[in-house]
Amino acid sequence: MNNDTVIVTGSKLTIDEVAQVAINGAKVGIAPEAQQKLTESREFVYELVNSNVPVYGFNTGVGANKDRKVEADYYNQFNVNMVRSHCVAVGPEASQAEVRAMIVIRLNTLLLGYTGMSPAIAYMYRDLLNHNITPVVPERGSIGEADIACLSHIALTMIGEGDAYYHGEKMPAKEALAKAGLEPIMLGPKDGLALVSSNALAAGQGALVLYELKKLIQLADMVYSFSLEAFKGNVSPLNEEINRVRRFRGQNESAAHVRKLLQDSYLWIPHIANALQDPLCFRCACHIHGAVRDSLHYLEELMDIQMNSSDDNPCVLINQNAIMSCGNFEVVNWTVAFEMLGIALSHLSRAACFRTIKLSSEHFTGLPRFLTPDPEHIIAFGTIQKPFTALDAEIRHLANPVSMDFYAVAGDIEDHCSNTPYVVQKTRKIVDNLYYILGIEAIHAAQACDLRQEKEFKLGIAGRVVHQKIREVIPFLAEDRNLTVDIANAYQLLKSGVLLHALNS
Amino acid sequence: MNNDTVIVTGSKLTIDEVAQVAINGAKVGIAPEAQQKLTESREFVYELVNSNVPVYGFNTGVGANKDRKVEADYYNQFNVNMVRSHCVAVGPEASQAEVRAMIVIRLNTLLLGYTGMSPAIAYMYRDLLNHNITPVVPERGSIGEADIACLSHIALTMIGEGDAYYHGEKMPAKEALAKAGLEPIMLGPKDGLALVSSNALAAGQGALVLYELKKLIQLADMVYSFSLEAFKGNVSPLNEEINRVRRFRGQNESAAHVRKLLQDSYLWIPHIANALQDPLCFRCACHIHGAVRDSLHYLEELMDIQMNSSDDNPCVLINQNAIMSCGNFEVVNWTVAFEMLGIALSHLSRAACFRTIKLSSEHFTGLPRFLTPDPEHIIAFGTIQKPFTALDAEIRHLANPVSMDFYAVAGDIEDHCSNTPYVVQKTRKIVDNLYYILGIEAIHAAQACDLRQEKEFKLGIAGRVVHQKIREVIPFLAEDRNLTVDIANAYQLLKSGVLLHALNS
Amino acid sequence: MNNDTVIVTGSKLTIDEVAQVAINGAKVGIAPEAQQKLTESREFVYELVNSNVPVYGFNTGVGANKDRKVEADYYNQFNVNMVRSHCVAVGPEASQAEVRAMIVIRLNTLLLGYTGMSPAIAYMYRDLLNHNITPVVPERGSIGEADIACLSHIALTMIGEGDAYYHGEKMPAKEALAKAGLEPIMLGPKDGLALVSSNALAAGQGALVLYELKKLIQLADMVYSFSLEAFKGNVSPLNEEINRVRRFRGQNESAAHVRKLLQDSYLWIPHIANALQDPLCFRCACHIHGAVRDSLHYLEELMDIQMNSSDDNPCVLINQNAIMSCGNFEVVNWTVAFEMLGIALSHLSRAACFRTIKLSSEHFTGLPRFLTPDPEHIIAFGTIQKPFTALDAEIRHLANPVSMDFYAVAGDIEDHCSNTPYVVQKTRKIVDNLYYILGIEAIHAAQACDLRQEKEFKLGIAGRVVHQKIREVIPFLAEDRNLTVDIANAYQLLKSGVLLHALNS
Amino acid sequence: MNNDTVIVTGSKLTIDEVAQVAINGAKVGIAPEAQQKLTESREFVYELVNSNVPVYGFNTGVGANKDRKVEADYYNQFNVNMVRSHCVAVGPEASQAEVRAMIVIRLNTLLLGYTGMSPAIAYMYRDLLNHNITPVVPERGSIGEADIACLSHIALTMIGEGDAYYHGEKMPAKEALAKAGLEPIMLGPKDGLALVSSNALAAGQGALVLYELKKLIQLADMVYSFSLEAFKGNVSPLNEEINRVRRFRGQNESAAHVRKLLQDSYLWIPHIANALQDPLCFRCACHIHGAVRDSLHYLEELMDIQMNSSDDNPCVLINQNAIMSCGNFEVVNWTVAFEMLGIALSHLSRAACFRTIKLSSEHFTGLPRFLTPDPEHIIAFGTIQKPFTALDAEIRHLANPVSMDFYAVAGDIEDHCSNTPYVVQKTRKIVDNLYYILGIEAIHAAQACDLRQEKEFKLGIAGRVVHQKIREVIPFLAEDRNLTVDIANAYQLLKSGVLLHALNS
Repeated sequence: MNNDTVIVTGSKLTIDEVAQVAINGAKVGIAPEAQQKLTESREFVYELVNSNVPVYGFNTGVGANKDRKVEADYYNQFNVNMVRSHCVAVGPEASQAEVRAMIVIRLNTLLLGYTGMSPAIAYMYRDLLNHNITPVVPERGSIGEADIACLSHIALTMIGEGDAYYHGEKMPAKEALAKAGLEPIMLGPKDGLALVSSNALAAGQGALVLYELKKLIQLADMVYSFSLEAFKGNVSPLNEEINRVRRFRGQNESAAHVRKLLQDSYLWIPHIANALQDPLCFRCACHIHGAVRDSLHYLEELMDIQMNSSDDNPCVLINQNAIMSCGNFEVVNWTVAFEMLGIALSHLSRAACFRTIKLSSEHFTGLPRFLTPDPEHIIAFGTIQKPFTALDAEIRHLANPVSMDFYAVAGDIEDHCSNTPYVVQKTRKIVDNLYYILGIEAIHAAQACDLRQEKEFKLGIAGRVVHQKIREVIPFLAEDRNLTVDIANAYQLLKSGVLLHALNS
Repeated sequence: MNNDTVIVTGSKLTIDEVAQVAINGAKVGIAPEAQQKLTESREFVYELVNSNVPVYGFNTGVGANKDRKVEADYYNQFNVNMVRSHCVAVGPEASQAEVRAMIVIRLNTLLLGYTGMSPAIAYMYRDLLNHNITPVVPERGSIGEADIACLSHIALTMIGEGDAYYHGEKMPAKEALAKAGLEPIMLGPKDGLALVSSNALAAGQGALVLYELKKLIQLADMVYSFSLEAFKGNVSPLNEEINRVRRFRGQNESAAHVRKLLQDSYLWIPHIANALQDPLCFRCACHIHGAVRDSLHYLEELMDIQMNSSDDNPCVLINQNAIMSCGNFEVVNWTVAFEMLGIALSHLSRAACFRTIKLSSEHFTGLPRFLTPDPEHIIAFGTIQKPFTALDAEIRHLANPVSMDFYAVAGDIEDHCSNTPYVVQKTRKIVDNLYYILGIEAIHAAQACDLRQEKEFKLGIAGRVVHQKIREVIPFLAEDRNLTVDIANAYQLLKSGVLLHALNS
Repeated sequence: MNNDTVIVTGSKLTIDEVAQVAINGAKVGIAPEAQQKLTESREFVYELVNSNVPVYGFNTGVGANKDRKVEADYYNQFNVNMVRSHCVAVGPEASQAEVRAMIVIRLNTLLLGYTGMSPAIAYMYRDLLNHNITPVVPERGSIGEADIACLSHIALTMIGEGDAYYHGEKMPAKEALAKAGLEPIMLGPKDGLALVSSNALAAGQGALVLYELKKLIQLADMVYSFSLEAFKGNVSPLNEEINRVRRFRGQNESAAHVRKLLQDSYLWIPHIANALQDPLCFRCACHIHGAVRDSLHYLEELMDIQMNSSDDNPCVLINQNAIMSCGNFEVVNWTVAFEMLGIALSHLSRAACFRTIKLSSEHFTGLPRFLTPDPEHIIAFGTIQKPFTALDAEIRHLANPVSMDFYAVAGDIEDHCSNTPYVVQKTRKIVDNLYYILGIEAIHAAQACDLRQEKEFKLGIAGRVVHQKIREVIPFLAEDRNLTVDIANAYQLLKSGVLLHALNS
Repeated sequence: MNNDTVIVTGSKLTIDEVAQVAINGAKVGIAPEAQQKLTESREFVYELVNSNVPVYGFNTGVGANKDRKVEADYYNQFNVNMVRSHCVAVGPEASQAEVRAMIVIRLNTLLLGYTGMSPAIAYMYRDLLNHNITPVVPERGSIGEADIACLSHIALTMIGEGDAYYHGEKMPAKEALAKAGLEPIMLGPKDGLALVSSNALAAGQGALVLYELKKLIQLADMVYSFSLEAFKGNVSPLNEEINRVRRFRGQNESAAHVRKLLQDSYLWIPHIANALQDPLCFRCACHIHGAVRDSLHYLEELMDIQMNSSDDNPCVLINQNAIMSCGNFEVVNWTVAFEMLGIALSHLSRAACFRTIKLSSEHFTGLPRFLTPDPEHIIAFGTIQKPFTALDAEIRHLANPVSMDFYAVAGDIEDHCSNTPYVVQKTRKIVDNLYYILGIEAIHAAQACDLRQEKEFKLGIAGRVVHQKIREVIPFLAEDRNLTVDIANAYQLLKSGVLLHALNS
């Protein structure tokens, strides 16, 4: 927990702020103008309650029960029932950071005046975050057309049921609230629906995956630049003008980044490279990383809208004096962007694997086969090609789409969905595998650099960082040893953020 | 053939212009400033020829032969050999329109001065188009890292070998050139590579697929709006403010379009709708179409760069007095965008199928089951659910990614690719299937409208067009008949462009 | 057309006989005891007609109309309506051979007494075959839970509607029947259902795919054995005892076959091989071909049951004096076996591609790179790696499953299917691509053999055949030429059956 | 741990015995004749050691190092190096039961005399099992062409390195051996390869998955029969003769089983069923379960061979006085059978989901919508359709094939693989998800049964068991409650084996 505070307004929440709250424990405040909107929109809801217009999920049932009337004196019980009956999730639990991300995003999106929720509940979202109470939320069960099956568990904590973490310790939610000096909330009309009907689970997990990916793509550039030095590769494909010929944003960003990372490197010495034309895994790395960047940029734009707009149904429209049925929980556009991202990451993975294979090949490097320091006695990096290609095959498999695999549920009413949570979760798994794959690439590049004899050999600014940090946890392979340990260490190193931090400090 | 002329400059070619040339037979002119650049860059190439710097594919071999030297007196034969040996494609033939699209795109991209090709060849590209000579190009064989295996067949025509169409008639290329009064060209240094090494096949076929899709998404909106009228659905999800709550571009475009298409419709009568909340296939249609539009916008931006920039390798850089090896033929970013588009189209397809099923369901429409005009004696639209779900299953299958399924070829040098032509071709197939699926939806909607008894019933501006045009080719189903014929007619109607044309005129 | 006659009995139809009728035009006769059964079961149906028990699709409607009663005096019109309304298919047309396969299989399965169809219709199936009348059947539209959407078109011909081929010429079915001296048939109770409700489309196309595959696996062994000779590979993995260690049937069949194909080969000379351990694409070829064989054996057993048992619903059970509703049109077991086969073929394809790459690699063969006869001037087989890997990527894509991609149709009654026709059709496409891939492998092997200088070099019995037949249509590559032509010729050679015929004669 | 002992002979190990050892802790003994074979084959290896014939991995290096000679005095260090350098795995850990399964299978396969391993090592395998020492084996890293990257960790324990569990407690392997009174082993020639080069990881995990599946298919029949009673479905599709019409083994097994499970059920009362023709998810359940059974039978046959034959390379052939290079570690045939099984399970899953949806539908059951006991106030089973379809979408995704997604590694030598461990692991995940899906189906069926008012209502023998056991852990839903808890309880119930046990006792 830190002392920074993120002020949520409904319209300006960033992925970095979500990470700040979710991972670093920043506190959250609600902007005053947002509090005003909360109140106004709630008052409007009560006006409608007293009218006779039927409004979905409010004075009617929900889903296929939408044609059932709900009587006013039954509001409280009806909403509690709704929360309970919507608890239909399946483990494993989302991480505590992920649940915090869900909460801050849901809190933000309800501040725009389209939700009509009791202000007390909005404050409860804030209080859960600020008192470090984190509901237990099983992460499976939602098909992504609002994550009602899972978000209900956050509501459960609010009404003092189910389990929650309090400062990291799991206990009954009732107890957690008590320890923090909070009271369970009472639910009014529409509150049940407002609590459960949001895509905040997928958006929260998705925001953290994007947060990771924005670092991972920097790391991928770093590891690639280091590999290129180990390979003694050609820098002409990095040439600024050559990349400008193609105006693709991502490609140019990666190329510019890699040029910077290679500052001071011996690779800039004319004609130093092994060959006129390198294998494509080296030559096209910035194009491939660029494709990931382009996908990321596209997705971030969509996610920015998702995190800063209401996905409520029905939608409270004060201007029009109405609460209207809508389909704003439909997130197929950014879900398919996540599917594209997975495919792009599969390309990135494959290129990293092929570079690692090339680093082991005497035909390409002029170094000993499998980077052994002693061809007669040390086996070195032969078998290690299996784990990274095995992980790459997993990524290939995870990159298959799944968003369209659904059928009609809920009385044939819900006949579209996007399986968004699972799509996000498979992307999270891809990212995790990539830490291993890039870690193993870095191990190879470090070994190759240590074996290089060229008197001109000199690493650039990134290469120096990667080499040093790798060597702090993984010594030069002078004799055969248990590489499972090295792989785990490389994974930890990359995942920890140490490399980026060291580069930038 | 028409008399319009598209002037190519290297930097402003649009998808509509490509279609104009490819489909409508517009003629092509080369902008004077582009001709100037062609000459300069060719002169620069000759300067380099006479120096001793080894340049890939120019005075060296290509691919894994890149370390082989090519002697100057061997240029001509070497380049003819390159063209011939790169003819390694597999049928079926690309359509003549597609080949024209390839040619105009390749012509455009070589005008920027990065190619260094003989100006005579650029003029030959133009002449093939303007004399209506279309090389026979088998469409399979390229893995998309430049479409060398296929584009070589265009070069083959230029040197008077292989087959070509002359005004639609297939004949030996030599004969076609002769009929048009053209001479086969001679190849100089770098010409072979410049002829084959481009992504123009995938870009050409891709541009035409995008051209189709831009119309298809309009059609999908039209058919949806007509279905909504047949279904007597709720228009609240189309409300302008509700959609503005979510700032997604595509969703708002589709919603605005559908509101316009529904102008005059009885659906705007308050409380006319069947239900407070419609099935998601109706309620979220604009969100789903919006996802397709978002994907399209993203892809069009990338394709615009592709069609207006050089994908040559090596790249001629006069400023730097160099010809440099690069990876600018790498098109993974827009290839994965095509894969995303396929996934988004699978959602669109599924929603259309579910709407069609709903139109047949007495529980939802209040109309007779399977829209029969006589429940006792006419079976009507029961079995027809099979063909459209069968076609939807094909689309689901086609939407699986394939861009990352490759391994190292060409002496382990080409260890990345994107299978771009096949990715584009599977998207083309998805589009074709969608004409059937939307056509069958329109058949259902027309039948449902004809069965509606409501006195308020009145179609909007689009519904009137669709209904009339459908009924011109497919009569009301008054008794059971061979529906295979109706399906084929609906497909033709949608594919023909008649609906959009009638709407806009 | 030939003069052989296949006698169908209902229980002994083989894949070879189907091919005999479908491809070679054999005539068909119905066994006398089967005719007897036909009559008995039809009489039983008429007994039931006159009782009052409701029987699905007989005196009730079908699908979701199953609760509608059909009056006796309406039988004829009802069944004609059923045929017409079930014509809901989409092109392209199935080949004439495939339609013949459908007919002979459907005819066979209705002879077992469980169908209860009018004997006249059974005779009409036979007459269509024997008079060479082939209905036009669009091949798409069925989801595989009986191929009703397509088989209806065969029924359409029988009632004199739609189009048909008569001795290969397309004309109105009525005309075709007239030319053959046949009368359109009249439909009685249950006949409509009996005509359309069968899996004969998938079974017919599937039987022919299996027929092709049984030859293809022989061809694959042949091409592999020839490649092994070209590669100078190790024969120890073919050792009989080594293969017997593993008792897998397919592996042992392929190994035994390849040992026989290599009879007389120089590879049996001790220590002739390049290396102790060959690349796995060579070493494990029999295991991989064995996996295809195992899958084939499994599938053939299931297909044998399919072709020789009734898939009718309802099922006529004379013993039990009943016509019962059932699910015997459910073919998920052999459909998933086809999906497995596709996956196994993707392995076979990949192994062939890797062998072809290895044949081009100087590191492995000791022959010139890309098998060029003149490294200075002839490019030879560099670019050709692209088309075969492109086709392999298509196969990888086609191998994705699709059988489970369905949702509920027909009033939510048909909530399971297997998409069997499409599954079969994608397997057919895989087979077609494999002719190209194996053809290109054979081109490489022939070139490598011609470049081999070893004095011991001597081809085995299969190698001699393949080499000679390849050289009859594709000369040694002495200089660069248009290889698209060679590829097409190799494809034709393999597909034609000439190689197997030459080997066995 | 129990006191039973499984005697391994090399040729008769069953899946049940593997489970007995792996899960129930049975001890293991080696048959005397197998010990004899061990000795003979080891003696033969030493004879060869003293000859000069180069043998892969024995007196040569392995993989791409296969052309390196190993000197005799270096055997020990060489084999330790091989073990260490082959430790290249990635977490998570395989379960202890799975590691025991790997050990007993590997032990069994080396008893056939084709391995040539030191007998002391064979005894060590036995001792690890019998002293309850379980090496820590990370389960990822192998591509399935022998699981060398992971099995090396078992070898590591044997030489006293790495970590292991001793009676369930994790500690350094050295310490575990000491506690059990065992000494680390010394490695002789070929031992390193014999230790790591086997498919025992995939076979061990696979055997346990099959063990689970053989129970799961029984459970699936039970839950289906219970659902059919809850649904008041038609039993005619279960009719013995109707199923005999189709001779498919699996279908007939499931139908016979379900008939038995339904003994005493009210469903056998004539005309009791709701409808003449049930939805296919009910009507075709035995066909679908049958497809799973057919796939299982096929796979079990192959797995039986795998567990009882040597997958060693090289292969020791005393008869031929040779050690030969081979490809017997190639397991593509049973790997693709696992892929088929996953596809078949996706069908089973989808059918269970559709049945559960149907049980909630008033149109089909005549019971209250979503099985609510109080339509006015209790929401009941509306939202629960989301988690099971979400889990089904995961299964759909997992069912995508991955075995063919590889490329050449190890110096281009290993250019085929099957990714077998991952294929098995994804099947394991499918099975786990199915416990949830079938559990939720059972919850629905129990609720529906409790709501049924028919006076004839009476459960059959299986229905009574399932109903009682469900109700022991999950009460009737009388008011809305947290269903996440119910789902978890149903999962546990099904996974525990209690249902099958109660049925059979």
